[in-house]
Amino acid sequence: AAHGARKMEDYGRFLALLASTLLVGFVSVILSLVWVFHYREGLSWDGSPGEFNWHPVLVITGFVFMQGIAIIVYRLPWTWKCSKLLMKFIHAGLNTIAMILAIVSMVAVFEFHNAKNIPNMYSLHSWIGLTAVIFYSLQLFLGFAVFLLPFVPVHLRAVLMPIHVYSGLTIFATVIATALMGITEKLIFSLKNPAYSASPPEATLVNCLGLLLVIFGSLILWMASRPHWKRPPAENAKILRPIGATPEGTEVESTMTNSSNADKSDLRINTEAARKQNIKFDEAGQRSTM
Amino acid sequence: AAHGARKMEDYGRFLALLASTLLVGFVSVILSLVWVFHYREGLSWDGSPGEFNWHPVLVITGFVFMQGIAIIVYRLPWTWKCSKLLMKFIHAGLNTIAMILAIVSMVAVFEFHNAKNIPNMYSLHSWIGLTAVIFYSLQLFLGFAVFLLPFVPVHLRAVLMPIHVYSGLTIFATVIATALMGITEKLIFSLKNPAYSASPPEATLVNCLGLLLVIFGSLILWMASRPHWKRPPAENAKILRPIGATPEGTEVESTMTNSSNADKSDLRINTEAARKQNIKFDEAGQRSTM
Repeated sequence: AAHGARKMEDYGRFLALLASTLLVGFVSVILSLVWVFHYREGLSWDGSPGEFNWHPVLVITGFVFMQGIAIIVYRLPWTWKCSKLLMKFIHAGLNTIAMILAIVSMVAVFEFHNAKNIPNMYSLHSWIGLTAVIFYSLQLFLGFAVFLLPFVPVHLRAVLMPIHVYSGLTIFATVIATALMGITEKLIFSLKNPAYSASPPEATLVNCLGLLLVIFGSLILWMASRPHWKRPPAENAKILRPIGATPEGTEVESTMTNSSNADKSDLRINTEAARKQNIKFDEAGQRSTM
Repeated sequence: AAHGARKMEDYGRFLALLASTLLVGFVSVILSLVWVFHYREGLSWDGSPGEFNWHPVLVITGFVFMQGIAIIVYRLPWTWKCSKLLMKFIHAGLNTIAMILAIVSMVAVFEFHNAKNIPNMYSLHSWIGLTAVIFYSLQLFLGFAVFLLPFVPVHLRAVLMPIHVYSGLTIFATVIATALMGITEKLIFSLKNPAYSASPPEATLVNCLGLLLVIFGSLILWMASRPHWKRPPAENAKILRPIGATPEGTEVESTMTNSSNADKSDLRINTEAARKQNIKFDEAGQRSTM
């Protein structure tokens, strides 16, 4: 009973944190809209500043908020009854949408720059931002090939998962850092009379937006790195696995928050058998959820 | 023998990564010096731009490079024969120096701003930077009180360690993000004719410095988050612990990379006994190394 109470308390804490994260994310999106509609030229697609304004809005909505949700989607307790495969599709789907929005947001800047004869790719913001988009696309492509397509053996998935988690979180942090540089640039360039240094209301609003992005990122990283909030490998297995089969998911559960004592050598022994059962399980999961 | 070979290979990989990290860190410090001496007004302490220039140099040397080393100092295999207490002092010492350098670097900017009648604390860079310094100082103070002073019981240390690790890594990432904003600001403000957008050599050099900071941060985070590169709790214990004593370190080894199966309830049972033996061990460690 004490154990159950502790579990419920922990569940409550997770929900409170999730609600805070969603709130911070939503307010960030709202602030980006207030910024471009109330203080700037709104949204358009004609080479004007209104086209540039898609850049912050799409980055904050897609590349920050949606990527953040994609990162913690496996942590949502009510999804643990869903198949792992379905959750992988949701994870990959959210990241794909985020990638598309990030690319569109870059196109908006290039078109605006070209229309106004402003050079492209000269700033640190642009260097790191483009690098982040390239790594993000690579991460998505490799993640799809390794963890969704059925060709990669289970033990290789287990070896690659910590790298996937590390690079995912590092790219996420880099994206937020890049957003902060972008905010800095834009406020310096667009605020004249009163200048940024005179702290007009727009500057204060957008500084607050930057702070919220840091808080959002910190909350996501906390939720993603708590080992006890991970999707339990057994729970899914209990529902779906045929008797005697290796539950899919257990072997790719090794992440940044992995056990330091995990010995993968025993996994390697049964690779072929495990892989076959894994495929069987994948199919079972697919049938039961799609 | 195969296990030994794998261990040596892993050791080699760690050393290669450490060497790369140190190289990237050193080059960053060098580039910051080239920036202020070759392209800017050098260093001075008289309210002139030369005083401002201490800001990037001290931040990159102390708040980025030294903080990064402080984070991974427990990971250096040749320190595993040293007592945990000694390593804690080195960790705390490096972070204290980094904190002092960060504060001096802020003083340099305030004095420069005041001499030139430039407003303080208006930019997102300053907001997040000051927040990072405050949290960093808080982290250092709490870390000292919880993990170095002998008053906090072992089980509380174990509960607080993951939070310490998480906030340490998050603050570190935030500091690098803040440095990137600072670089962006400074290049926009100081490059006129040719402007930042014309990509003069100074802009390219400092953009590269920014990229190196991101690479440095990514390498530190990778090394800090690999569970198998952690200081092994048993190795130290084998050398130093009196027969039957609880090895100090085991109970505070739970970090971001903690086992997902770790059950701390058994720790709680023996708290008082473990704490006493822990103090004994701390003393033994102290005697043997200091």
